[in-house]
Amino acid sequence: MRKRMIMTGAVAVSMVALVCGGLQGEEGLWLFNRPPRELLRQRYGFEPEPAWLERLQQACVRFNTGGSGSFVSPNGLVMTNHHVGSDQLQKLSTPERDLLAQGYHARKPEEELRCPDLELNVLMRIEDVTERVQSAVKRGMSPAEANAARRKAILEIEQEAHKRTGLRCDVVTLYHGAEYHLYYYKRYTDVRLVFAPEKEIAFFGGDPDNFEYPRYCLDICLFRVYENGQPVKPPHYLRIDREGCREGDLVFVAGHPGRTDRLNTVPHLQFLRDVQFPLSLQVIFRREVILRAFSERSLENARRVEDELFSYQNSRKARLGILAGLQDPAILSAKGRQEDDVAAQLRKLGKHDQAEQYEQARQRIAEIMRRQRQLYREYYLLERGVAFNSELFHIARTLVRLAEERQKPNAERLREYGEAGIPSLLQQLFSPAPIYDDVERLKLADSLSMLLEWLGADHEIVKLVLQNQAPQRRAEQLVSGTKCKEVAYRKQLEAGGVKAIAASEDPMIQLAKAVDPYARAVRKRYEEEIEEPLRQAYAVIAQARFAAYGTNIYPDATFTLRLSVGTVRGYTENGKAIPWCTTFRGAFAHEEAHQKREPFRLPLRWHQRREHLRMDTPFNFVCTNDIIGGNSGSPVVNRRGDFVGIIFDGNIHSLIWDIAYTDEQARAIAVHSAAIIEALEKVYQAHELLSELQAK
Amino acid sequence: MRKRMIMTGAVAVSMVALVCGGLQGEEGLWLFNRPPRELLRQRYGFEPEPAWLERLQQACVRFNTGGSGSFVSPNGLVMTNHHVGSDQLQKLSTPERDLLAQGYHARKPEEELRCPDLELNVLMRIEDVTERVQSAVKRGMSPAEANAARRKAILEIEQEAHKRTGLRCDVVTLYHGAEYHLYYYKRYTDVRLVFAPEKEIAFFGGDPDNFEYPRYCLDICLFRVYENGQPVKPPHYLRIDREGCREGDLVFVAGHPGRTDRLNTVPHLQFLRDVQFPLSLQVIFRREVILRAFSERSLENARRVEDELFSYQNSRKARLGILAGLQDPAILSAKGRQEDDVAAQLRKLGKHDQAEQYEQARQRIAEIMRRQRQLYREYYLLERGVAFNSELFHIARTLVRLAEERQKPNAERLREYGEAGIPSLLQQLFSPAPIYDDVERLKLADSLSMLLEWLGADHEIVKLVLQNQAPQRRAEQLVSGTKCKEVAYRKQLEAGGVKAIAASEDPMIQLAKAVDPYARAVRKRYEEEIEEPLRQAYAVIAQARFAAYGTNIYPDATFTLRLSVGTVRGYTENGKAIPWCTTFRGAFAHEEAHQKREPFRLPLRWHQRREHLRMDTPFNFVCTNDIIGGNSGSPVVNRRGDFVGIIFDGNIHSLIWDIAYTDEQARAIAVHSAAIIEALEKVYQAHELLSELQAK
Repeated sequence: MRKRMIMTGAVAVSMVALVCGGLQGEEGLWLFNRPPRELLRQRYGFEPEPAWLERLQQACVRFNTGGSGSFVSPNGLVMTNHHVGSDQLQKLSTPERDLLAQGYHARKPEEELRCPDLELNVLMRIEDVTERVQSAVKRGMSPAEANAARRKAILEIEQEAHKRTGLRCDVVTLYHGAEYHLYYYKRYTDVRLVFAPEKEIAFFGGDPDNFEYPRYCLDICLFRVYENGQPVKPPHYLRIDREGCREGDLVFVAGHPGRTDRLNTVPHLQFLRDVQFPLSLQVIFRREVILRAFSERSLENARRVEDELFSYQNSRKARLGILAGLQDPAILSAKGRQEDDVAAQLRKLGKHDQAEQYEQARQRIAEIMRRQRQLYREYYLLERGVAFNSELFHIARTLVRLAEERQKPNAERLREYGEAGIPSLLQQLFSPAPIYDDVERLKLADSLSMLLEWLGADHEIVKLVLQNQAPQRRAEQLVSGTKCKEVAYRKQLEAGGVKAIAASEDPMIQLAKAVDPYARAVRKRYEEEIEEPLRQAYAVIAQARFAAYGTNIYPDATFTLRLSVGTVRGYTENGKAIPWCTTFRGAFAHEEAHQKREPFRLPLRWHQRREHLRMDTPFNFVCTNDIIGGNSGSPVVNRRGDFVGIIFDGNIHSLIWDIAYTDEQARAIAVHSAAIIEALEKVYQAHELLSELQAK
Repeated sequence: MRKRMIMTGAVAVSMVALVCGGLQGEEGLWLFNRPPRELLRQRYGFEPEPAWLERLQQACVRFNTGGSGSFVSPNGLVMTNHHVGSDQLQKLSTPERDLLAQGYHARKPEEELRCPDLELNVLMRIEDVTERVQSAVKRGMSPAEANAARRKAILEIEQEAHKRTGLRCDVVTLYHGAEYHLYYYKRYTDVRLVFAPEKEIAFFGGDPDNFEYPRYCLDICLFRVYENGQPVKPPHYLRIDREGCREGDLVFVAGHPGRTDRLNTVPHLQFLRDVQFPLSLQVIFRREVILRAFSERSLENARRVEDELFSYQNSRKARLGILAGLQDPAILSAKGRQEDDVAAQLRKLGKHDQAEQYEQARQRIAEIMRRQRQLYREYYLLERGVAFNSELFHIARTLVRLAEERQKPNAERLREYGEAGIPSLLQQLFSPAPIYDDVERLKLADSLSMLLEWLGADHEIVKLVLQNQAPQRRAEQLVSGTKCKEVAYRKQLEAGGVKAIAASEDPMIQLAKAVDPYARAVRKRYEEEIEEPLRQAYAVIAQARFAAYGTNIYPDATFTLRLSVGTVRGYTENGKAIPWCTTFRGAFAHEEAHQKREPFRLPLRWHQRREHLRMDTPFNFVCTNDIIGGNSGSPVVNRRGDFVGIIFDGNIHSLIWDIAYTDEQARAIAVHSAAIIEALEKVYQAHELLSELQAK
């Protein structure tokens, strides 16, 4: 599934690259402040009004856990995917009440369940701050100085804007450093669960069907946003069109694609192929196996790790698909030819100096990648924390760093401890979501064992971390000894600042303190030797592409709001026509074909209500819209801007979209609005919800 | 489960080491030609007659797939574990007849199903040939020369003995090179399936319960051995004792432990910890995930890979347990102290020269391990074939090598192509067992992708293998293009020898030909730079240990017949007494506790016949006997030499037995003979079988 951004896999650098030459088919992850007007007019004869765009932008919602969604009622109802909401469903569950398995339906406001640590953001405004950020970097600065100056400028801009507006303000690096835009978000932190179907139908077909099509999933979930204890009146919302779309329709997807690597230079793609993807897959394979083995020991174990296990399964499938693309020599040679073409174009246009600079920048990226190959493993283990796979460790690290960073002026802090980001950070830090000792022990022991395998028993850090003990025993000590499980203790340490941290004898806090100098050191090197030179080189490359092909170019995905344009359309596979949509009838047939074995078993309720259902209701459909992980829960809208579906996945052919768009067979997959309405009405008899959703 | 030897994990060197100092508790994997008479007499007052030992030895059976078993009737009935027979059950299954799921019961001889490629061996005689092997190596020979001379001597000895007796003759390297014994085996190749229960009861609790205790598994399977179309009269067989054993009983296990690393020197254990185990676990994790994902797509997929998937799950659990031991600094320091003690003892005995030689040998092993760290990865990928995870590739390689090796005099061939081994080799090569294209593609594509990851895209071998194509496409080409699926084609190539191989345009044969020079080269280096020097160094170490502690020492396991001595005894875990046996009643309660979810669902037949069962029948039991992977299916016998149970697993605490024996909590797990009889009678109503088993 096009689930919330894959966090496991170390998004090393917020990578950005550029479209080179013409777009493929319906390619494009367009910025809302730079929509593809020309393309829309020429290709579809469609000219969106500013109000059309504003409504769509402000009806969209970003889930801080890594997904998308949209307001669908004037009373703050937000629709997203079940698999985007699932981590909250998991956190709201108990051994007695398994919301993932049973689903949930609040029939009155009092029954709406407040989520422990969900934050939603609505993008209110975008401002181009490129000049201010770029001008902070002076000629002749070393990469370290440039990096510090740039970070300082960004933190100042964010802090000023936050003070001025009270909004969450993020500076977003676009085109990998060619542009910087300031995004103003309205933050919502009181979010309540209203409705979720059973996982059996939300994720019908489970991991085996994930990223496959035809599909039959009611992958939806409804939350309501509150402010001051009252349902919020959102700036805008989308009306659900009960008829939905049909084959051939022009449709738009607005959501938060997490990350693409489409126009990384070839050595950069080779780095992903040779280092980053293999390492992250190694981690994913072992964690999937270990969580699954734990899960199968008892039903309660299964409940405790269900969401996390799914997350690894999902990442594994996605990453294997991307890696297969990276390992295809044909794709890499095509990329190389495209790169060469930029220089050729520039020379044709007489821009020889720029062509020369462009070639130098390519060379520099190749060199940076050589350095990155050396640094990456330690950076991944220590700073990205792959060696410490534990909620409790991450809480401890946040407490340790928060105290230290707050001592510094805002502009000198680590990026994520800037004053403007503190409210969101505290919301996460003080989350009352349950933490299970057995799960923590399991995960921490395995990752400590991996640390030992990767760095060797004689490595300074390994000795420091393990304290001459077997990983399993060390993990037991840390988990059973720490008080970071208690929110009160976290609050106490947060309030006490550096003194409290220094005095704490909590073993997890002590571990976080001990590791921090090393983690900070490798991060510093990584930022100064990799990220900053990379930004500078890609900025040159971006300018060269603009000069060669014009500026009608979108930046790689950055988990910020984007618009994509496409058509509802089936495709052909092994000579067989794959239809644009599936139906409820198909779902029951699919269940039958798998002898109703898990995960191919429809919920009891669906069987009980079967005869009430209109069996030819379109259930899931495919379209050519350009999406990627993070787009899960994005609304699909028609020309009128009405909601006709919700993205929840891409098919197996679309996995390669991470590095290259094609629409020969690759498709986004969505739940059809007709299926949503039909199921809410006939299966769940959610009449109040329906009247709210269909209010004029 | 103590399944057939784990083949995945690259048994790099048939490792042997020695007990140092006293034995721990009931430790010992004793040679049948050197039973622990003194220990038996002193500790248990038991003095086995030669006839007692001979009966046990010749009633035991080795499964060439990596397990143990025993004759249990005068008419050639062999009892082993279901999980030892499962690969044959898999191969005998079709989409319409799933023998793993449904079980099997031949009620008359005509219904007994002939296994496609099973070979059983019975050990008839052992001869010490140490002197002849050692004297082939002359002073001043280089390791390469020594290796060649030793191999030549071994192949000659085997060939002569085979010619003389017609038996299968294997020279076994013991104490890692201190001794060489010639094992004479009777080979049986017409083996037929008689009875197997449903997997639901044979492997009740599945992977989650694997290596756990209490357990409730009827992990048995019955074959019948034929010769010349008639049931064989075995040299000896074991009578099943219906009463079986009780807590406190002295019991013996006779079987084929595959491999232990108990007294490797510390640098050698560190090599396992840092290189061999992490690499093999990496392979296991990814294959488990990939097979499982394939398995879940359909019931037929599941059937096709069930046995292989189990094999990875089993290896994963076992290896994680051993690795945890290797990663425990306390264990490694204890090992180091034991090693130091050998030298101290020798000096105390005034054997200063030998102490010096011993220390030098330890140093040499440390150096060899440094070299092994460099060579191992390529050796593992190319020669052990981890890069080519495909039945068809292995068939192709065998055909290519067989043709080439047969050109050479017997004594100069690769070890496994010696004349004496050819019959067994051809039996495997011409197996009609089904090979599935989809499974082959899946496995080969993944392993080619791994080859690319591990060696990098620019590596000569990677280019040679992939031919500038993506791994997936290359695998498709190879699998769909090869005729090695057809037994007739294999026979044709085998008959045609080098000419036929040279002329073959079969893509898989061509791949095997292309890779072979590289694989042979790395094997040669590995044998000459690692294995031979290691044998020489460990021979010195073995002699030193003999000199320090006397010769009452057993060699590490080598997948040859061993005797272990132990006691039926429960243990304590987290302060709780774990009883020596479980009962049928417990099995039904266990099912209930897991809400009858797979794999905690008992077969329908067990529910139907429930009220006929004596619920307090002992089901599984634990004993302190020293076992390891390969011991699966070993008979447990009492003082009278009667069959009282069958080993099928060890508990989680026993995983560490690979490197060190302890019997504080570690236990072998067996099916109780009373459960076998009760189930055959009451559930399966196998009256003919019962009368055969209970014939006087």
